[in-house]
Amino acid sequence: MVESSSTVRKSSLHDLFHPESVAVVGASRAEGKIGHSILRNLIDSGYQGPIYPVNPKEQEILGLVCYPSVGAIPEPVDLAAVAVPVAAALEVARQCGEKGVRSLVVVTAGFKEVGQEGLRLEKELVDICRRYRMTMVGPNCLGIMDTRTPMNVSFSAGFPHRGDIAFFSQSGALCAAILDWSLKRGIGFSKFVSMGNKAILDELSFIRDAAEDDYSKVILGYIEDVRSGEAFVEQVARAARKTPVVIIKSGTSQAGAQAASSHTGALAGSSLAYDVAFRQAGVIRAETMEELFDYAIAFATQPVPPGRRVGIVTNSGGPGIIATDQVEAQGLSMARFQKETLEVLRRTLPPAANVYNPVDVLGDASAETYRTAFRLVLADPGVDAVVCLLTRPAGIDPADVARGIVEERRRFPEKAVVAAFLGGENVHGGNEVFRDSGLPSYEFPERAVKALSGLMRYGELVKEPPLGRGQAFDDVDRETVRRVFAEVRKEGRTVLLGNEAHRVARAYGVNAAPIHLATRAIEAVGAAEELGYPVVLKVASPKIVHKSDVGGVKLGLEGPGEVREGFLEILENVSRVMPGVPIDGVEVQKMLPGGTELIVGVTRDLQFGPLVAFGLGGIWVNLLKDVSFRLARNLTMAEIDKMIMETKAYTLLHGYRGRPPLDAKAVAETIARVAQLVREFPEIAEMDINPLVAYEDGVGALDVKITIS
Amino acid sequence: MVESSSTVRKSSLHDLFHPESVAVVGASRAEGKIGHSILRNLIDSGYQGPIYPVNPKEQEILGLVCYPSVGAIPEPVDLAAVAVPVAAALEVARQCGEKGVRSLVVVTAGFKEVGQEGLRLEKELVDICRRYRMTMVGPNCLGIMDTRTPMNVSFSAGFPHRGDIAFFSQSGALCAAILDWSLKRGIGFSKFVSMGNKAILDELSFIRDAAEDDYSKVILGYIEDVRSGEAFVEQVARAARKTPVVIIKSGTSQAGAQAASSHTGALAGSSLAYDVAFRQAGVIRAETMEELFDYAIAFATQPVPPGRRVGIVTNSGGPGIIATDQVEAQGLSMARFQKETLEVLRRTLPPAANVYNPVDVLGDASAETYRTAFRLVLADPGVDAVVCLLTRPAGIDPADVARGIVEERRRFPEKAVVAAFLGGENVHGGNEVFRDSGLPSYEFPERAVKALSGLMRYGELVKEPPLGRGQAFDDVDRETVRRVFAEVRKEGRTVLLGNEAHRVARAYGVNAAPIHLATRAIEAVGAAEELGYPVVLKVASPKIVHKSDVGGVKLGLEGPGEVREGFLEILENVSRVMPGVPIDGVEVQKMLPGGTELIVGVTRDLQFGPLVAFGLGGIWVNLLKDVSFRLARNLTMAEIDKMIMETKAYTLLHGYRGRPPLDAKAVAETIARVAQLVREFPEIAEMDINPLVAYEDGVGALDVKITIS
Repeated sequence: MVESSSTVRKSSLHDLFHPESVAVVGASRAEGKIGHSILRNLIDSGYQGPIYPVNPKEQEILGLVCYPSVGAIPEPVDLAAVAVPVAAALEVARQCGEKGVRSLVVVTAGFKEVGQEGLRLEKELVDICRRYRMTMVGPNCLGIMDTRTPMNVSFSAGFPHRGDIAFFSQSGALCAAILDWSLKRGIGFSKFVSMGNKAILDELSFIRDAAEDDYSKVILGYIEDVRSGEAFVEQVARAARKTPVVIIKSGTSQAGAQAASSHTGALAGSSLAYDVAFRQAGVIRAETMEELFDYAIAFATQPVPPGRRVGIVTNSGGPGIIATDQVEAQGLSMARFQKETLEVLRRTLPPAANVYNPVDVLGDASAETYRTAFRLVLADPGVDAVVCLLTRPAGIDPADVARGIVEERRRFPEKAVVAAFLGGENVHGGNEVFRDSGLPSYEFPERAVKALSGLMRYGELVKEPPLGRGQAFDDVDRETVRRVFAEVRKEGRTVLLGNEAHRVARAYGVNAAPIHLATRAIEAVGAAEELGYPVVLKVASPKIVHKSDVGGVKLGLEGPGEVREGFLEILENVSRVMPGVPIDGVEVQKMLPGGTELIVGVTRDLQFGPLVAFGLGGIWVNLLKDVSFRLARNLTMAEIDKMIMETKAYTLLHGYRGRPPLDAKAVAETIARVAQLVREFPEIAEMDINPLVAYEDGVGALDVKITIS
Repeated sequence: MVESSSTVRKSSLHDLFHPESVAVVGASRAEGKIGHSILRNLIDSGYQGPIYPVNPKEQEILGLVCYPSVGAIPEPVDLAAVAVPVAAALEVARQCGEKGVRSLVVVTAGFKEVGQEGLRLEKELVDICRRYRMTMVGPNCLGIMDTRTPMNVSFSAGFPHRGDIAFFSQSGALCAAILDWSLKRGIGFSKFVSMGNKAILDELSFIRDAAEDDYSKVILGYIEDVRSGEAFVEQVARAARKTPVVIIKSGTSQAGAQAASSHTGALAGSSLAYDVAFRQAGVIRAETMEELFDYAIAFATQPVPPGRRVGIVTNSGGPGIIATDQVEAQGLSMARFQKETLEVLRRTLPPAANVYNPVDVLGDASAETYRTAFRLVLADPGVDAVVCLLTRPAGIDPADVARGIVEERRRFPEKAVVAAFLGGENVHGGNEVFRDSGLPSYEFPERAVKALSGLMRYGELVKEPPLGRGQAFDDVDRETVRRVFAEVRKEGRTVLLGNEAHRVARAYGVNAAPIHLATRAIEAVGAAEELGYPVVLKVASPKIVHKSDVGGVKLGLEGPGEVREGFLEILENVSRVMPGVPIDGVEVQKMLPGGTELIVGVTRDLQFGPLVAFGLGGIWVNLLKDVSFRLARNLTMAEIDKMIMETKAYTLLHGYRGRPPLDAKAVAETIARVAQLVREFPEIAEMDINPLVAYEDGVGALDVKITIS
């Protein structure tokens, strides 16, 4: 893309949203045709540059000269909307490329979404774009709009109000519905994008662009998947620090979770990977469509408040209590007013009024009294944001109250203000004032507080250190790991035997007890003599996952006799419970003393790469699911500390109810080393250290499981 | 109240909501006065009986003959609205009593809500009502309405649409706001009640009445507290089986929780007591105002479906996925269609359509196609309820789609149907059809599914066995308990010593290890010799709650020497850590073998009486908070089984990952015996058995704490 002469830094998709000229290929005279709608919408949107309809069968459409082909247009073309049948689309794209068009918006359907043949066509379309250095929205999309340019290159019915919300959606139908809904609700947008098949431009492109432009105040998205997980996290983490990103991700199915076999895998599931990735990227995840827009309205109009202390002003008790409950439920805190505020409130309000938070000015308060109370609460240094509630205006005009709030809030532009005037026609005037002044007002108090909590969460998010690189240690032995994996592959296996997994873990500095694999009782005794007693025996078989369930484990064996006996018993038990199961032998391991059992595990997400898990281990893993997750890629020591703190294991590590504190540092280092291992060996599909036993001094990995792909 | 000649069973407040005649005492000619508004509202509501304004200064108001006093009215008066100043209210009430008035609606304020003097007046008012056998709404309320009578005895601005929702509210301001809001949203009510101070009639009265009338299909309430907890649970449990009860309870503060000192108390808190009580009463608790009404609309119009299998029909993918996610999130299940349904869907829909649940008829489907798909899904025997979604109608009229749904759904009246047509003006016609036909439609798919989940939860609730009486055992020794409590009281204590608490527990058949209290080392040795080794020593002091934290516990002492040494060490430790703390001695207890540690506890709620807690014990209590609660009053063995099943302890009791199953029956019996104890001794304020150790055979209560009031 060519930079304009202006020195102002432009957003990455500036040329797409502000083209000098637009061609509509497949323009039509026939109302109801997509090619007609796009042309009509473009004209109606007030687009200022030249518009070139292209259709070999027409001379003129909607008063504009029509060209037989893009190549026939005498002037340069910046952007081309492509609305021709799928059979012609590739040729049109090629002609656009020859003409020097910079951006395509391909609304034509019949590509990837219809199956194999469509996928092939889509790949060819992408190739053409790459060859001619064109960018592309779609195919199979509704189109794009920009209310600043202004420009509507879509066949959508309607053009949004001008506003500060950049919206992109993976579902075209949802785009249309939301646009229609927003017109009714008076919500405005800066950019409005239907991404279609995301063959070139995807959510990441639009998030980056909107964060760079100077008019989108919040970025909103509906997605069903992310195209490139690692780049998404990395780049959105930067974008979201500049402009808040709120996303609703649908399709949180359980299919992924059921397929995984390890503990860690079963706990994860694809929704969790998105949760972890969004969080590390600083994305605010909306749970519902309503939440998405409730957040958006707050972000588009309010500053991010400095803290989470909320003041509430109301003229009736019930809604005040409801809002207070919600403040607690959202983890925000009720502001405590300073003495001066309380004194002035006491002097101003009638004796029966409540001057403490939530301030209740009572039902018969005048608009002026409400305004004064609001001013005092807003001005209190202990207040970061104010929720304004009003019911049944007894003799006062809610529009007056709203105007008072709007005027007073100007004196504290750094604090956030949200409102919920309860009712219908009675409070309509107040809500109109709010809408015209850009102060967010909600139907019910709970939604107002929830929206505020979004702002406050974002405020804390941007204060966190930027996304880092995973901690890496130098003292790792990659060669041993490579050798073990090569051996395993050579034998056609994917599951490592215990002694192999322990060797791999030790190679990366994880304190995993050495294991000897014995195929005969006498070998087991020899190994035990070498390791020292007591020892543990475990059956070694890639087919047996829960070894103790089949009598395949013997603990605390104290001498050669017990080892010999144990060896034979294990073989007997296993062949009785699982007759015919292939057994590689019995593993002999020095028995470590008891301690607090933890788990460190890894699962790999298709989109976001390896996820590291930490929590209470042993039998507690599945029972308690006290596990926190992070992307291995960005696992700094600071992030590891945070992930430990999120679990109940944290409390145990730091000495709970008279127990001595355990070696939290060694635990953290183990997590870091596991993360490094799976980063450096992408062939590791899953890994569990369970239990990792924590002592007052050091840790011991008792059982390490690794699966490679 | 006098029964009418009709043989139909009338609701308990039938006379209040269907009076033969109404007097408005304090009626006024002056617009804006409450006494004017009530009279005007009553006339405007279309009330058919005689109306008698009462005001000594007027001859006529609003065209009606005005009387100087209630006594001066020549005909009988059924109901009197009282809108006189507080100073005159008591005298008016007396006159009403003399006149034979049956019901009062006292809107006059200035009673309990203004403090001591008001409380006195309110008590007098209640006395007058009782003397004359009058019932009363209020005082300090907005009034009451019934859309069937019809009758509006309130000073509210507006009269609700006729509908099937009975609504009561403890906040008058909220009443007014909700009425105004409902008019805008087109939501109708059967009864609409502002309860005010609830001096006589309260939430329980209105719930019972609405469950008994034959036109309220759902009962909705906003409450800040319940007036009589035990009666509420008992009676609402019956009412809610007939008519669903949905309540929003505000004021879920933490103050109560912080005040309590025991484990169980700290875990409970007042919000929890309401949760438990509501659940046992079969009340559906709404978390937000929006949820309250979303549920209400579904209950008022839809049947309770037979199961929780949901079918979804949509004309675009995105909303279908969003609804599917929500079905999972709400714990409902996606219906699996039978082969016949799939075959016909496949024949009917275009090849690209999705015939599996959620069924996607695609954006270009006609209203007829949508209707067919809906019919097939609704008819499938594996479907209990259907969610209908529609976005951007491409060439079809959403009103046609809505009409198709409304017509087809009639053939399966036992299944529930909810809709979410997404958009604004584009889908308005469809939503109008739904509103007129009484089919609930929501702004977003998530809310439609959530509302459905309310119906389905209720369906399961009514299938549960009715509220029972707590299990009682005959082999209990009440005399011992009385004696112990008497001793404790005599010494001016409220906290029982360990040996006392264990005696009380044993008296009710709880297997609590005997404890001897020793004040000298030699006594401790003597006790140990008698009990048998190993023993445990614990400091005995009502001031020391966490004994091990101060070095006040010695475990596993094996002989007289260890006991003597242990005794002295404990005294030394405690006097060092807590110098000057009063010590009653050292308790000697036989050491029980290790096992799975559980907790059984009791806390007492001011409203609902004793709550019994059960869960994982020992150090896990505060860390995991894996505890379930029930009201002791209604704790049947079946309910105990359910409360155990809700915890993770359940899994451990039934043999988890190779561990042997434990004596779940003995655990259940211990819970039942503790519940009986606290039911029969209301002076028990708090009680903890922690740990209760569960073995393969039997249980042992290691540490019992009891506080009496």
